[in-house]
Amino acid sequence: MATGLSQFKAKTSLFTHTRSRRTVVHCAAVVSVDQNQSFWATIEADIEAYLMKAIPIRSPVTVFEPMHYLTFAAPRTTAPALCIAACELMGNDRGHALAAASAIHLMHAAYYAHEHLPITGRPNYKREIQHEFEPSIELLTGDGMVPFGLELLSRSMDLAQNHNPDKILRVIIEITQLAGSDGMVDGLYRELELNDSNIDMGIIECVCKKKEGELHACGAACGAILGGGAEDEIEKLRKYGLYVGTIKGMQNGVGKDNKGVEEKIEKLKILALKELESLKGKKMVSISSIIEPSLVVI
Amino acid sequence: MATGLSQFKAKTSLFTHTRSRRTVVHCAAVVSVDQNQSFWATIEADIEAYLMKAIPIRSPVTVFEPMHYLTFAAPRTTAPALCIAACELMGNDRGHALAAASAIHLMHAAYYAHEHLPITGRPNYKREIQHEFEPSIELLTGDGMVPFGLELLSRSMDLAQNHNPDKILRVIIEITQLAGSDGMVDGLYRELELNDSNIDMGIIECVCKKKEGELHACGAACGAILGGGAEDEIEKLRKYGLYVGTIKGMQNGVGKDNKGVEEKIEKLKILALKELESLKGKKMVSISSIIEPSLVVI
Repeated sequence: MATGLSQFKAKTSLFTHTRSRRTVVHCAAVVSVDQNQSFWATIEADIEAYLMKAIPIRSPVTVFEPMHYLTFAAPRTTAPALCIAACELMGNDRGHALAAASAIHLMHAAYYAHEHLPITGRPNYKREIQHEFEPSIELLTGDGMVPFGLELLSRSMDLAQNHNPDKILRVIIEITQLAGSDGMVDGLYRELELNDSNIDMGIIECVCKKKEGELHACGAACGAILGGGAEDEIEKLRKYGLYVGTIKGMQNGVGKDNKGVEEKIEKLKILALKELESLKGKKMVSISSIIEPSLVVI
Repeated sequence: MATGLSQFKAKTSLFTHTRSRRTVVHCAAVVSVDQNQSFWATIEADIEAYLMKAIPIRSPVTVFEPMHYLTFAAPRTTAPALCIAACELMGNDRGHALAAASAIHLMHAAYYAHEHLPITGRPNYKREIQHEFEPSIELLTGDGMVPFGLELLSRSMDLAQNHNPDKILRVIIEITQLAGSDGMVDGLYRELELNDSNIDMGIIECVCKKKEGELHACGAACGAILGGGAEDEIEKLRKYGLYVGTIKGMQNGVGKDNKGVEEKIEKLKILALKELESLKGKKMVSISSIIEPSLVVI
């Protein structure tokens, strides 16, 4: 069985943002495009290493072989990386946020697997993807991936550096709410209702905001909580994540190729960067480069 | 849309155990069959009331209407009730275990919904059940139910009486492990592999143990943890739950109607009751009546 890792790497398009026409200067740190790219690349590598270690192909193989495959087969989103960056921005080591970032990736990967299952009577059936396992196995595996991610997160409490059960429970509430009732899952329902006759910029923005937007908002808020941020910082980063995710959804998701999207994205970038204004330091430049890779401060 | 509650009530066959030929006497408390039935009935009513309050049909309706329906449409298992009974046996109020019991029910109901989805290429497709919503909605709703249950559990930390985040995180680990990698999910994989040519008592027992057995083991262990049980009591109740669930699986699940099941069940009952021997008191009689409704101690 292919591990899906080569496929995973090929799909990692995290750093291929379109270069913005604007260059925004926010603080005095000197950060090059290369440094920003390296910042995100090391985060991605750390998340991947964490997941590789957490999901080896071990017993029961019937469970872990498809889980390993589906974890790495899903196209990446920037939400887990944003979780790590937010934690570091708050001054804490990225080790505190790796389990949460991985749980967010597992949730995204589980939904991706289920979105592409060949079930009968599904409207707007997504484009065909390669299936390595039978649908019944991919269904069951997707079911297991969200709890597995939350198990990793809960167990991270055992690490001496992470023994803060209140913070971890708060992060579990953030992720379960996103996956369970409000947030992203609501966006997925809305996406199901889309069809060619009702698609316009308002609906595109609404779907992108609820789906990718809430996913990134959750990632940023979780990172800020685990990084020890104050309540106003957590809320600023949550809003920043919401704008970042909405932009990503418009660039890569349902909004892709739609007329007027480019202009909307530019407006959202300004709103996003505004949320970061009161946060100072080099890492602020790094975190903002998720939407502004061309950000060079001299 | 039918709420599914009448259907839910009609399906509640929790107290229709077959009367055992043996009457086991363990302690000096006087407990009648009626009292035992009333004990389980009040637990079931409390879990139902908790879920009704937690999952009203509220905004976003697209999420909560199918979630409400699927929560109550699934046939009940005794695992959530066992969670409550174990908590009370350890001397704690049942309020401490209601969120955990509800999370266990939601997990079971989500898997039940997904087991009956019309996906292509599924071997051993389960008997047809009535679907109130489109398959894409039932898939997505099932995805949301496990995190929603864990959200309820995490939020129960906010109740003053429950502020013990370490215990709640430990229970989350129990439930996520069951749903995510080991335990029940492993049993579900094994059940997928069953077919008419390979079914024998060994395989039946293995599937029942991994599926219903681990579900009940988790329920009992979670109740014991939240009830403040000592480590040896938690492990005794976990083993008790494992036997109880295996018996239930043989009575109602894959083992049903198979030759030799009756004899196997009698042996498992003896092993189950042995785990309770060192636990004294009236509630011990009540908890054992889950497999021995005829238990009358005089």
